[in-house]
Formats: sequence, C-alpha cells, structure tokens
Amino acid sequence: MRFTSEQRLDDGVLEREFTLGEIPGILWTPGSASAPAPLILLGHPGGLHKMYPRLVARARHSAAEGFAAATIELPGSGDRPRSAAAEEARADLRRALEAGEPVDDEIVDRLVLPLVEKAVPEWRTALDALLSLPEMGGPVGYAGGVIAIGIRLAVVEPRISAALLFAGSFVPRILFEEARQVTIPLQVLLQWDDEGNDRQLALDLFDAFGSKEKTLHANMGGHTGVPQFEGDDGNRFFARHLK
Amino acid sequence: MRFTSEQRLDDGVLEREFTLGEIPGILWTPGSASAPAPLILLGHPGGLHKMYPRLVARARHSAAEGFAAATIELPGSGDRPRSAAAEEARADLRRALEAGEPVDDEIVDRLVLPLVEKAVPEWRTALDALLSLPEMGGPVGYAGGVIAIGIRLAVVEPRISAALLFAGSFVPRILFEEARQVTIPLQVLLQWDDEGNDRQLALDLFDAFGSKEKTLHANMGGHTGVPQFEGDDGNRFFARHLK
Repeated sequence: MRFTSEQRLDDGVLEREFTLGEIPGILWTPGSASAPAPLILLGHPGGLHKMYPRLVARARHSAAEGFAAATIELPGSGDRPRSAAAEEARADLRRALEAGEPVDDEIVDRLVLPLVEKAVPEWRTALDALLSLPEMGGPVGYAGGVIAIGIRLAVVEPRISAALLFAGSFVPRILFEEARQVTIPLQVLLQWDDEGNDRQLALDLFDAFGSKEKTLHANMGGHTGVPQFEGDDGNRFFARHLK
Repeated sequence: MRFTSEQRLDDGVLEREFTLGEIPGILWTPGSASAPAPLILLGHPGGLHKMYPRLVARARHSAAEGFAAATIELPGSGDRPRSAAAEEARADLRRALEAGEPVDDEIVDRLVLPLVEKAVPEWRTALDALLSLPEMGGPVGYAGGVIAIGIRLAVVEPRISAALLFAGSFVPRILFEEARQVTIPLQVLLQWDDEGNDRQLALDLFDAFGSKEKTLHANMGGHTGVPQFEGDDGNRFFARHLK
C-alpha cells in the first residue's frame, strides 16, 4: 500500500489517496482520532472519480462520528483495465433495459458474479493493508452497494462486524443463498420508488438474510434520493455495532 | 377535562390522569419544560391499565427529548362500556384466527370501522382540551397503533403534523383509500416476522400513503419485539418535524 497524495479537508479530515498494486483507493481519517478509529469500507458501483463527491460526503459524515472510511476502485471501473466479458454483459443488460425486456438471470450472473469474485478478495487485501496502519485497528463495517459484494464480504470476511447495504437489483440467485448465511447486524436501505430497482427483489433479499438483527429502511425518491437523515441513522447503526 | 391524580415520576416527568367526560386519559409532561412542549398522542390497541407499562415507557422516552405525551382510553376498552356489536365482531375474528381461516373483510369492517368512527372524534376532543392547557401549544404528532385510527386522524385533523404508525393487520379497505389522502410526514414501523400481522398488507399500505416523506422501518421479531433503538429513531423523527 503506497500513499500517493494527502490533503487535510476543511473539517480536519485527512484524505489520503493510495494504490494497492494496480488498485487505486482513498482513505479518510477523522481529524481528532485518539484511539484507533473503527473503519467503514465504502462500497460503490465503480468509478472512483465520478463517485468522489458522494463518497467524500459519506466519509466526512462518518468521520464526524469518529469513524475512518476507505474505498477502492472496482475491477473494470475508472482507470482500471476493462474486462471484455463484463463489457459484453453490460451491453446485453443495457439492450434488455432499453427494450423494456426482463433481464435474464444469465445476464445478471455474467455481469455480477465475476465482479464479486474479483472485487471481494481485493477488498480483503485492502482491509489487510488498512488494518496494518498504526491509526487503524478497530472493528470494521461495510457500507454501500454493490449489494452482491456486500453479501459475499459479510459471509467470507470475519473482520466485518456490521453492514449497511444499499438495495439494488441484479443480484445473482446464488447470492440469495449466501444471504441466508449472513449473520452480522444489517441495515438495508431501499429507495421505494427507484425505477431502476426491483422492489420485490429487494424485499425478498431482506427476508433472506440470516441475521437476527436486520432493519430495513425504505424511503421515497429515486436511486440517488436517499434522505439526508439516513446518513445520521447509518452513523448510529455503526455506533451501536462498532463502538 | 378534569385531572384526577398527579404524580412526579423519578425522572421528573409529571404524570397526570384525567377524565374527559366518561373517557379516562393520561398526560405526561417533561420535568424541565420551559417553552410549550410539542405533544405526541400515544395510540394503543385499547386497555389503558394493561398497556400502562409500555405507554409510560414511551412517554418517558419522549419526555427525555422535550415532548409531552398523552393518551386516552379507546371506546369499548378498559373500564369503558362494551359495544355488543364490537364484541361480536371480535368473537368472529377470534374464531376465524383460531380456525386458521382468512379473515373476511366484512369482519374487519365490523370490528374496526365503528372503532375509528368513535375514537377519532374523541381524540380530537382530547386534543382540544390538551392544547388549551397553558403548558401546551406546540405542534402535535401521533404515535402508535391502531393504524386505522392513525390514518383517519392524519386525514381529518390538521393539527397533527407527523405520525409514527405501527403497522397492523385488520385495516378496512376504505382506509387504504384514505391513506392516499395522507400528506404529513410518516414513519411506519413493521415487525417483519409478526405472526399476527399480514406483512404484504403492511407493505401495500405503506405504498398507498400519499405522503412525500414516508419511511418504513422493518425489524425482526414479533409484535412486541420492536427494538429499543426505534424509540430513539422515533424521537428523532418527531424532532425533525415538530421542533
């Protein structure tokens, strides 16, 4: 892990860009961290540069409650090399959506499963590197999409103690099975009227999670319309489980 | 409105029992109220005495955030005269449930509609009396079941600015139509695995509400298993809308 830039944001948060082999990432640590800060991994749909304004807003909001936050680029997104198979699956998905056709499970599998297979080990490697920093070492949470990545991480990575998942469509069937194996506390955000999202699928997935403590927060508005107060609710969720 | 008893609870909350004609009720006001406190009407399924432990816990939790809280007995519950028709409908409901049969809309209508017709004007009269007290006068919220009463109140009572509704089954079809007319901010609590509750009906009802700001909080556990943190979430919901 190599830090490539460092800046202090106006609220005192330290933002450091890093690379981990070929993978770029960003780490935010609270200005006033005394003890090792609990760490929240910020999931996103890929494209660090495009996602930066939302990611930094979430990181600052978390830092205000004493959490560190970190994210890495997804395989095949941003400046990382594209996969021909993923690009093809994405094109097939786009065609189906534009034609108003139902999206075949087979397309979803081709699009999402290789992403999960590749991204999850990368997140775990990033976690190794992040937790070896002297200012880190507390418990870890995962917050955000891609929900399929969050599910797999929650199942295979014992260092993740709680997850705040953003409901999304395009969840391979096999991950419904894995969802039953998730036992950590969950908070699931669902945008009720998200045109790009299958509401019933999100409800079925929430039902499938094996966690004894799981809470669904459904709100109005489209994909990017998550109300501001959910940021506070997310902080309180992590404060209950990571502090 | 006549106060019949008064006691100061150990956290400083003033608890006063009152009668409003034949209707008994309880008013809780925070120990340290300076300005007129916003008032939360505490809905419940009937039986003030039996419900007292849960009601006083909710009232104290609200008072800790500066809210007054009040409740009244429902028609046909507690020490109030029974209605033969309601008792008959209740017996029919019990029979259907014990036989594992689906509950006819007709039974639900006979059970709930007269209750709504009678209870809602009583709540409004109580509101008149409560708001005429010198220590009252802020905005008003409604929190709790019976959800059918909450829906009707939200539609007809303009002094209610926000409602925290507990999802319950046995909602007459006509109240789904009324739900579309509700425009105040809502938070709806759903116990996901509540055996006595029809989950799909609760989701359909949440969908039906006309409010632009509505949030669904679904949690695990049965009817009385609402997690403690939802009390805090409820306070924050009302703080956003009543302060």
